[in-house]
Amino acid sequence: MDTKYAKACPSRTVMDVLANKWTLYVLGLLRQYERPLRFTELRRGVEGVTQKSLTQVLRNLERDGLVSRTIYPTIPPRVEYALTDLGRDVGALTGAIADWSKANAGRVQAARAAYDNRPD
Amino acid sequence: MDTKYAKACPSRTVMDVLANKWTLYVLGLLRQYERPLRFTELRRGVEGVTQKSLTQVLRNLERDGLVSRTIYPTIPPRVEYALTDLGRDVGALTGAIADWSKANAGRVQAARAAYDNRPD
Repeated sequence: MDTKYAKACPSRTVMDVLANKWTLYVLGLLRQYERPLRFTELRRGVEGVTQKSLTQVLRNLERDGLVSRTIYPTIPPRVEYALTDLGRDVGALTGAIADWSKANAGRVQAARAAYDNRPD
Repeated sequence: MDTKYAKACPSRTVMDVLANKWTLYVLGLLRQYERPLRFTELRRGVEGVTQKSLTQVLRNLERDGLVSRTIYPTIPPRVEYALTDLGRDVGALTGAIADWSKANAGRVQAARAAYDNRPD
C-alpha cells in the first residue's frame, strides 16, 4: 500500500489550511452573512477565538487567495474581509460539513454516550 | 450580530472533530480503499502521523460512531477499522474537500506566491 497522503503533496498543504476549526468558522460566517465583515464582527461571531488566532487564520486565508482584505482610509482605518471567488467555492464545501454537523449532531452525541457508557 | 459559532453548540463539537487534518486523511483512506484497514496500513497511508496521534484520531472516530473497530482473536490479535454508515456519509463530504484541494492546489499556490512576493 502506497502513501496516499504524502507530506509533499500540494493538495495536502491546502487541506491542512482547511482542517482548522477557526478557518471553517470564519469561512462559514462570511458565507452566511453574504457581505464583507470587519475583524470585530468576525471575532464576535466565533466564540472563544483569540485575537491572535483570528489574525493568523485571516492572514492564511488571504495568503491562499480565499479571502480579500480591504483597507478603507477612514479615521480610524476600517478593514473588511470578504470571500474571493475561490473562497466562495471552498466555502460551499466547508458549509456542507457545517450543515452535516448540525443535522447529525444528535446521532454523533448518541454514539458518544454509548461509547462512554459501554462495559469494558 | 449574534455569535454564530457558540462554544456550547452541538454541531460545533462535531465540526471540531472533523477539523483535524489526520481525521480527514483517515476518513479519506478508508473511503478510497473501500475495505477495512489495519492500524499499520493506516499509519503507512498517512505520512508523518505518529502512533499516538493516529491512536487518538481512531478513538475519537470510534467514539463518534464514524468508524468501527473489529478485533479478530488471532495470534497476535488482528484489529481492523472500517467506516460505519454515518462515517461513509461524512466521508463523502470530507472527500469533496480533498478533491477540491487536489483540483485547486495550483490556484492556491499561485495566490501564496503572489502574496509572498508582493511589495509592502
